[in-house]
Amino acid sequence: MTEDELDALIMLAHLGEPGDQVLGSYVRKRGPVAAVQAIKARKSGLRDGAGLYARLRLADPAAAREKCGRIGAQIITRGTVDWPTQLDDLGDAAPFALWVQGVAGLRLAALRSLAVVGARASTSYGEAVCRDWCATFADTGWTVASGGAYGIDAAAHRGTLSASGVTVCVLAGGVDVAYPKAHEALIARIADEGVVVSESPPGEGVRRHRFLSRNRIIAALTRATVVIEASVRSGTTSTANAAMQLNRYVLAVPGPVTSPMSAGCHNLIREQGAILASCPEDVLEVLGPLSASIPRVGSDPQLWEVPHKVTDDLSAREMRVLDAFPGRGEVSLNQLVCDAGLGPMDVAAALGILDTGGFVKPNGMSWTRAGRA
Amino acid sequence: MTEDELDALIMLAHLGEPGDQVLGSYVRKRGPVAAVQAIKARKSGLRDGAGLYARLRLADPAAAREKCGRIGAQIITRGTVDWPTQLDDLGDAAPFALWVQGVAGLRLAALRSLAVVGARASTSYGEAVCRDWCATFADTGWTVASGGAYGIDAAAHRGTLSASGVTVCVLAGGVDVAYPKAHEALIARIADEGVVVSESPPGEGVRRHRFLSRNRIIAALTRATVVIEASVRSGTTSTANAAMQLNRYVLAVPGPVTSPMSAGCHNLIREQGAILASCPEDVLEVLGPLSASIPRVGSDPQLWEVPHKVTDDLSAREMRVLDAFPGRGEVSLNQLVCDAGLGPMDVAAALGILDTGGFVKPNGMSWTRAGRA
Repeated sequence: MTEDELDALIMLAHLGEPGDQVLGSYVRKRGPVAAVQAIKARKSGLRDGAGLYARLRLADPAAAREKCGRIGAQIITRGTVDWPTQLDDLGDAAPFALWVQGVAGLRLAALRSLAVVGARASTSYGEAVCRDWCATFADTGWTVASGGAYGIDAAAHRGTLSASGVTVCVLAGGVDVAYPKAHEALIARIADEGVVVSESPPGEGVRRHRFLSRNRIIAALTRATVVIEASVRSGTTSTANAAMQLNRYVLAVPGPVTSPMSAGCHNLIREQGAILASCPEDVLEVLGPLSASIPRVGSDPQLWEVPHKVTDDLSAREMRVLDAFPGRGEVSLNQLVCDAGLGPMDVAAALGILDTGGFVKPNGMSWTRAGRA
Repeated sequence: MTEDELDALIMLAHLGEPGDQVLGSYVRKRGPVAAVQAIKARKSGLRDGAGLYARLRLADPAAAREKCGRIGAQIITRGTVDWPTQLDDLGDAAPFALWVQGVAGLRLAALRSLAVVGARASTSYGEAVCRDWCATFADTGWTVASGGAYGIDAAAHRGTLSASGVTVCVLAGGVDVAYPKAHEALIARIADEGVVVSESPPGEGVRRHRFLSRNRIIAALTRATVVIEASVRSGTTSTANAAMQLNRYVLAVPGPVTSPMSAGCHNLIREQGAILASCPEDVLEVLGPLSASIPRVGSDPQLWEVPHKVTDDLSAREMRVLDAFPGRGEVSLNQLVCDAGLGPMDVAAALGILDTGGFVKPNGMSWTRAGRA
């Protein structure tokens, strides 16, 4: 990835409306640098439906980086080592870049994550179940992603934090725009102990349709989506639908048939094939081992049990380090640096992810291949 | 059906333990008369596992009829016009005879019936849902069958009665043995306004295993089984399993995941393919029109939507009357009596069932074929 490409992706993240598939398809065909050049020259042929050209004036990678430094955020772009590759399942609707604020690495956290979402107008039943289950998910090493909203979202983040777990909050506006305002302290705490992420540049406010685009990110980042409570027609359903389209598991928690806030969950189970989850173990069973891969788009949902190529989730850097391992026996960090032809920091970072994924394991000062490699 | 055959079936109902498939298979091969003769002569070759020979002394059709008269019950036997033919789906485990007490005709009531069953240790949530739904089922013309037990069963009967509906109570002991004792008044009221039925002769007490045999009758009599509340391992599950084996629909009502009394329902949905029912309409949708046929054993559950031959549920008498109808136009009762070669009372009774089933309809003093014929 060249500097020009990184700059182009940051430009595109400013120019496009989240989830714009026309722009996404254009960039896929041209490449980001040529695409940005054509847009700048007004020669892209793209319609200015979403204010593409108006935003050109405001999109400046250097200024964006400078702003990030000021608010303590990071920009990560497609194709870089920190990118959560499962977002590529979104195809032309995948984001070009993400703004991230927090202590946990998004890629690593998201590799072992599930989404827990639900109604804003939740009941005490739903909130109690949500807090409880999320604490269990955290205890078993899972990252809980949600949207930071009132009700179930907040209960999911709080339940995870209560068990000292990692939680990911995907915002519909910029990472520096706490929404809802009342959750400013909660979102700040998530940044302190987990990750706050957005595909909108800092300063961007929330708009109605961006909640829907945000929901697709939550679904794509995670291995499964658990709906705790939802009314029949709700934004939560959009997250569940996105997850289904992405071949991710969708689970729904039943509740009293007399509660409108469980009606959406019952619908998902009855009509849409969501799995009924009656306890956290039901969810953990579906998630599989922490180190398993996320079922990917294109795989037959009936065949989710059949593992796809286990290294599909690895970045080029991680593959390169893994390839540098001997078939058997131990290898030192120095040897890996030589054989992989990468800097020591790069190798160390890759080893961290390979270790988490169950591909390699440390053995004193050396490393060996592990079960999945 | 000759007098000898009726007597033999009544004998067999006294001799066999409910659901005894060895005896059932023997009777199927020999016919009831020859089977009883062989048993009497100790030449059946059947093992005396269930007290077959000890009961011989006590089994006397004439005495049984006399006793029935005394307690105001009726005996109906296999192969007679009053027999609910869907019980034949039980194969060799089908009862030989049923004792019936009540105002409603069992055959007609059961043609348009569903089972509503559940935990004895029910919660107020389950009872409220049950009463409510059963009142709706009654309002829409459905008969509700259940087992007269504490908890959900009682709520099902009471909810149906509250809407002046017909309810069928299938007892594990004789029809004159109210069980549980505390439900004596309820069971008497059911006999007054609906039907109380048992495959055990009057005077027979309940025994543990007879609850399981009784459950298969509830499942077989009805078009679908709705489980309102159930713990994970419970007798209710046996009714649901019997219904599934019989190709009947099984629906389960979800509840709070924090309630052990909903855990069995959640299991049925999650593990066994029961349909989640969140409102009475969910059940009615599955039941189809009142006049539809019960999906029968041997049909592919995937093909339940495809109607089998619609006259499969009709008795020989009803078929004979239906066949006497002209292809088009009206026919008088007198003409039907002539053409069917049956007595006026037989024809009138058959017309009642054919009318209920949507095969024929009255038109002033005459009759015409209706939609399904």
